[in-house]
Amino acid sequence: MKDGYIDFANSPMGAKLVNALGLPKPLPLERYQPGQPVVKGSVLVGGGGEPRLLEALASAFQRIGAQTLAHERLPQWVSVANKAGLITGRWGGNGKPGEKVKALVFDATGLTDSTQSDALYWFFHDAARSLLPCGRVIVFGRPPEQCKSPRQAAIQRALEGLTRSLGKELKKGSNAQLVYVAEGAEEQIESTLRFLISPRSAYVSAQVIRIGAPVGTAEIPGDWAKPLAGRKVLVTGASRGIGAAIAEVMAREGADVICLDVPQAKEPLEAVARKLGGKAIAMDIGAEDAPQKLVDAAKADGGWDVIVHNAGITRDKTIANMKEHLWQLVVNVNLSTQERINDAMVSAGALRRGGRIVCVSSISGIAGNMGQTNYAVSKAGVVGMVQACAPIFSEYGITINAVAPGFIETQMTAAIPFAIREAGRRMNSMSQGGQPVDVAETIAWFASPASAGITGNVVRVCGQSLIGA
Amino acid sequence: MKDGYIDFANSPMGAKLVNALGLPKPLPLERYQPGQPVVKGSVLVGGGGEPRLLEALASAFQRIGAQTLAHERLPQWVSVANKAGLITGRWGGNGKPGEKVKALVFDATGLTDSTQSDALYWFFHDAARSLLPCGRVIVFGRPPEQCKSPRQAAIQRALEGLTRSLGKELKKGSNAQLVYVAEGAEEQIESTLRFLISPRSAYVSAQVIRIGAPVGTAEIPGDWAKPLAGRKVLVTGASRGIGAAIAEVMAREGADVICLDVPQAKEPLEAVARKLGGKAIAMDIGAEDAPQKLVDAAKADGGWDVIVHNAGITRDKTIANMKEHLWQLVVNVNLSTQERINDAMVSAGALRRGGRIVCVSSISGIAGNMGQTNYAVSKAGVVGMVQACAPIFSEYGITINAVAPGFIETQMTAAIPFAIREAGRRMNSMSQGGQPVDVAETIAWFASPASAGITGNVVRVCGQSLIGA
Repeated sequence: MKDGYIDFANSPMGAKLVNALGLPKPLPLERYQPGQPVVKGSVLVGGGGEPRLLEALASAFQRIGAQTLAHERLPQWVSVANKAGLITGRWGGNGKPGEKVKALVFDATGLTDSTQSDALYWFFHDAARSLLPCGRVIVFGRPPEQCKSPRQAAIQRALEGLTRSLGKELKKGSNAQLVYVAEGAEEQIESTLRFLISPRSAYVSAQVIRIGAPVGTAEIPGDWAKPLAGRKVLVTGASRGIGAAIAEVMAREGADVICLDVPQAKEPLEAVARKLGGKAIAMDIGAEDAPQKLVDAAKADGGWDVIVHNAGITRDKTIANMKEHLWQLVVNVNLSTQERINDAMVSAGALRRGGRIVCVSSISGIAGNMGQTNYAVSKAGVVGMVQACAPIFSEYGITINAVAPGFIETQMTAAIPFAIREAGRRMNSMSQGGQPVDVAETIAWFASPASAGITGNVVRVCGQSLIGA
Repeated sequence: MKDGYIDFANSPMGAKLVNALGLPKPLPLERYQPGQPVVKGSVLVGGGGEPRLLEALASAFQRIGAQTLAHERLPQWVSVANKAGLITGRWGGNGKPGEKVKALVFDATGLTDSTQSDALYWFFHDAARSLLPCGRVIVFGRPPEQCKSPRQAAIQRALEGLTRSLGKELKKGSNAQLVYVAEGAEEQIESTLRFLISPRSAYVSAQVIRIGAPVGTAEIPGDWAKPLAGRKVLVTGASRGIGAAIAEVMAREGADVICLDVPQAKEPLEAVARKLGGKAIAMDIGAEDAPQKLVDAAKADGGWDVIVHNAGITRDKTIANMKEHLWQLVVNVNLSTQERINDAMVSAGALRRGGRIVCVSSISGIAGNMGQTNYAVSKAGVVGMVQACAPIFSEYGITINAVAPGFIETQMTAAIPFAIREAGRRMNSMSQGGQPVDVAETIAWFASPASAGITGNVVRVCGQSLIGA
């Protein structure tokens, strides 16, 4: 759970050795602490073509309280920002860089043809060296599948090549994301901007996020520090590890948490719930009557607002050596159970309008893994479930999304043999494993009432792990 | 270009050392030789639920001349196969495996709920150890996005977790693919089945392929050994490396090849064309008048049938160190030029009905790469172009697809520093780089008149490289 190498590589002697040997140099990642500003430093803004998001960005930055700067090729930012009541200035110019910044935000929604791609070049060429450690790159575009012309779709899809390359190039704990905003969904960006530009997204990199029209009613939290105030949030598998971290972050965000785990984990489960002022439910969610029991519990509680399907198990063997009941067990707990609970809770109205379902997939479900056919089937199925349920649940005002963790430091990963563990830890753009809180922060972003524009998304929390296919 | 390690690891002494040190054990991959049978060994067939592809599979196997065997949980295969005039038998039973087989083919189109996933378990559990080296796994399913219920979509999407895991687990040069066949497109599977089950797909693994209704008219080649007979095929960048291999395979498949490269490469270009009995065009396709020149050349030739956009360049630098003209050059040659040529050739009718466009993307375009922002932008754009143009070009009876090569042994990769080259070579399920011919065979499959059901696909030729995101 403790990665001693990070401390070593950042100690005076360790740093020398690491440099001399060309070893990976993981930087301790900045993580969110309540009370901190959303972004600790200036934000440099750029754009290409006729960018469509500037007004929405300016008002979001104004509410965030960010200090922005205009790249010389986006001079109009100054007036847009001023109109929004945002303090702003100009950055560099004539080939000279300006001050160091914490984030690079590029509005690429105006690009309609690949011949305009030099707009990307100028902004990132000029600014790449001016990004502070643990910096943020966010490129906004239009969903290629909704573009009016193939030329526009091609340049918009091309943005993914840029952000994924920058994620690998920037190093020093910085990350890079691509956010596709559907036409008309410009006002839905704020929760995503706040998440991505802040240390909450520490271990999320090279992701592609789609924001669309709001599902149900978009709500602006009265207090962005407590967006889940008054919301009842069920977290399964909450007795330890990632589940306990999720419950904790949910409570920090203001939620009333309902912590669920198997009866054998009753004691640590109740300890977690007690600490967070929440409830505990000890039950086996894989059982046939579990969905109805949850519906009853939710209804008795006046309905719940968020379900986090964190509970999951592994039973690893090559397919030739695997026993049938371990295949069935894993697929049932990790996939079929989630399907049954979602359908029961949504159709019974036990998950209220404005509800959020957040599932946990896995890099193994995306890329496959040796010895994990059962697990990968279940976790790939979660992706399918999320994508297929999104349009259906939206009629109930409910979103459904998934996180797909990569190498996260837990008791489970601590038990992995050293060499394999080290490979998992280092083979990503952060040269380190993630923390359970990184998964939890991502889930909290999906769970926010302000994230009504986000459904059917699968976001990896993997530090841009090399592993993908 | 020559990977000496493969020979070493397969020599008597080398094999001992490799075993003792736990080093990767790449097996020399079987590759297609004209005159060989499509599949060298028996094919074990399984299925789950009410499989919908059995008749189509049986008649395709009959034409292929394959020997099939029925897994005990698919007893109906025997009568379906017999009806198609296919010699077949039963395989194993009562927990005992049958003979060794060259391919495992599973029809999963009948799976409609995750609770049926044990059908996958039984087939692959029983058969995994019976797959011969350089074996083939093909799972057929229904496109999740077209499924009637979220439950069906989830289990169909789950198949990807299975094939990707099997690709990593099976080793010994075997590969595993997932083919989604749209309802009503069952008769379009043959060209894909032939490609995937044969040594032609040696370096293709863990891919997801979609087959839909035929674009234009589906044609069954009179001679499957010469499916491109009478077709005129333009190959750009044909003077060497992968381009020369493409031209060669196209000619082998019966095509009249038109080899194109820059004027500086005129000599080797003409040598390639001469050897293949084709034509040579020395021109700079990046020039503004290139599309019109190509339209004129094609029209003078009575129209062309296939365009293979192989020409591509790299100019690697981190974005901070990159010169603007090298950004522009790469995006222009690799992306904008392809857009211009396609639009000109299609709208002018210079690419005939039944035509095929095959583009070359790259793993760097999919996953991003350090020092390749320009290249990754261009190659990610190619993915967008393919996906956006597919529905438009289908109105002209033309398909458009792309291959995305991983580490391919060429002069270009031979110039990579040793350590990086070795990492690229070994970090995939085949523990070796691919050959130019592997890319060429994949392109030939897309180019076939029998591949009318395949458009908008991007298929990696990467041996299931770890690198993905």
